[in-house]
Amino acid sequence: MDVKSTSEAAYRGRVALVTGGFGFIGSNLVPRLAELGAEVRIMARSWPPQADLGEAVQPQVRFFKGDIRDEAVLQDAVEGCDYVFHLAGKSGASTSNESPIEDLDVNCRGLLSLLDAMRTGAPEAVIVFPSSRLVYAPNLPVPVAETSPTMPISIYGAHKLVAESYLRIFGRHHGLKSVVLRMTNPYGPHQRPEQHSYGVINQFIYEAVNGRTIRVFGRGEQLRDYIHVDDVVEAIMLAASSPSASGATYNLGSGTPTSLADLASLIVQVAGTGKVEHVPWPDSEASVETGDFCADISRIKEALTWAPRVELRDGVRDVISRVHRSPRLRG
Amino acid sequence: MDVKSTSEAAYRGRVALVTGGFGFIGSNLVPRLAELGAEVRIMARSWPPQADLGEAVQPQVRFFKGDIRDEAVLQDAVEGCDYVFHLAGKSGASTSNESPIEDLDVNCRGLLSLLDAMRTGAPEAVIVFPSSRLVYAPNLPVPVAETSPTMPISIYGAHKLVAESYLRIFGRHHGLKSVVLRMTNPYGPHQRPEQHSYGVINQFIYEAVNGRTIRVFGRGEQLRDYIHVDDVVEAIMLAASSPSASGATYNLGSGTPTSLADLASLIVQVAGTGKVEHVPWPDSEASVETGDFCADISRIKEALTWAPRVELRDGVRDVISRVHRSPRLRG
Repeated sequence: MDVKSTSEAAYRGRVALVTGGFGFIGSNLVPRLAELGAEVRIMARSWPPQADLGEAVQPQVRFFKGDIRDEAVLQDAVEGCDYVFHLAGKSGASTSNESPIEDLDVNCRGLLSLLDAMRTGAPEAVIVFPSSRLVYAPNLPVPVAETSPTMPISIYGAHKLVAESYLRIFGRHHGLKSVVLRMTNPYGPHQRPEQHSYGVINQFIYEAVNGRTIRVFGRGEQLRDYIHVDDVVEAIMLAASSPSASGATYNLGSGTPTSLADLASLIVQVAGTGKVEHVPWPDSEASVETGDFCADISRIKEALTWAPRVELRDGVRDVISRVHRSPRLRG
Repeated sequence: MDVKSTSEAAYRGRVALVTGGFGFIGSNLVPRLAELGAEVRIMARSWPPQADLGEAVQPQVRFFKGDIRDEAVLQDAVEGCDYVFHLAGKSGASTSNESPIEDLDVNCRGLLSLLDAMRTGAPEAVIVFPSSRLVYAPNLPVPVAETSPTMPISIYGAHKLVAESYLRIFGRHHGLKSVVLRMTNPYGPHQRPEQHSYGVINQFIYEAVNGRTIRVFGRGEQLRDYIHVDDVVEAIMLAASSPSASGATYNLGSGTPTSLADLASLIVQVAGTGKVEHVPWPDSEASVETGDFCADISRIKEALTWAPRVELRDGVRDVISRVHRSPRLRG
């Protein structure tokens, strides 16, 4: 299969709003949008957390400062957009169970406010929504296809699933165009290591590079599907610009399962420092543990002529080399 | 099969909170709880909308005045409860699509606040949650079992489904005991005819009794499952007091399908007045129309030794006779 790249024609001169544009995926997506000639808008609560990003794309980027629940700012940011990448929100399964009402407010009310703004200010725009593997029932046989049963065991997963319903309902009632991407575990540059709840890879890399001990819960046999953020960005942009994707739900992962223990070993090996220790499961993590997961990605590969390109070993090597170059990320 | 009735032993001297206790189901449930000797608490935003109910049960009932989102009142109301019947909330599929954020706030934030209050104030209590047939995908083959795919097409249905997740998650993380009842279309006395969005039967009866025209959308062939509120109350109370029901999800309906057109004819026939007219579907209703629905109720019949007792014709006759006795309900 020939794998497609995002076409410049789909983005040159088009207006793309990235909510949460300074977050992990946002800060990888924004430069790529700018590179293809899009007029990029970032809506975020504060900036610039990473000056280099801000400087690199500044001339083509408009900033809208506000919380995702601020309806007036949303209305301004959305007006006349062609694409909306909704990356703002709270993440983390165990955190969500500790503060469900805050998760509800940011993730559900925030999205409903955005959809309402789009309905009046950008009714023709396409919104891409990052859902999560955490909408699925735990302990399904891998790989898990989109038709598998959904049964979230965290508030975060439950709110991702209701968000998918919102998009379907706004599509049905208001003709809103949307694509849902159920993501596995993304990793890559610009992920802040202090965000424990987001991704395990950067956390492990951070420990290894600093010569510390990577702590793996239990035997670390549970499988995960790690996808490099470059592959995520490419899929997100293809999804937004493919008319046939409108209304669709796709898994977005590498399709390759890796155990946590193997991941930790790989990182120590590539970094050349650090070591691995197995520790008992903390309750907060055990209670949201989903068992093995690996995505069946045949649907998105077929529909978008997309495929993951970054091998885990290469991706890990790349992140480690950037950490070495960037003393800010060292402890 | 011998059908069980709710045992007095399960309720005498036990503390039962009914949120939304003055609503349609609440005002049928409260007298039955009082009759079995429960200490009843009602939490509601205002009262008494129906003086007769208030007077009949007053001595055994404590009132807690407050919105379901008022955490302080919730905490008081919940403290020391054995049973919580969470009947407060906004209802109506088409209304929810017009004001999704309000639906979110009342139905999702309200429930999360209640669960949080229970976690500290009544950790051993059982909560019964009225979910809805509207969590299911539209146009499923009837009868619809609990294992059928869920895919709500209204915000109301989406929020019922996320509420089911909350109960599952609070059960998993905090040991909270709950029963989910996915209700079909309940009808019966104490339903306010001005609540168009709630139930179609009382609306039809109201028109017929007043000699007016019942308007049926389209040909009225779509099937529905109408259940009398007495049967609902019995099932709710059995569910709360059956330890084996904890954590379960049951359909709650009559299990008998009736077309809207047949329902309208039956009502005109029993009332002896009114007539039926077929009118085009309004957009707001067409967009939330789910196609035929009838519940498969084998799971709840088996688990709770419960069965519906009120035939539709008898139930309709009973409601009509009460309307005739109660001039308040006449136009």
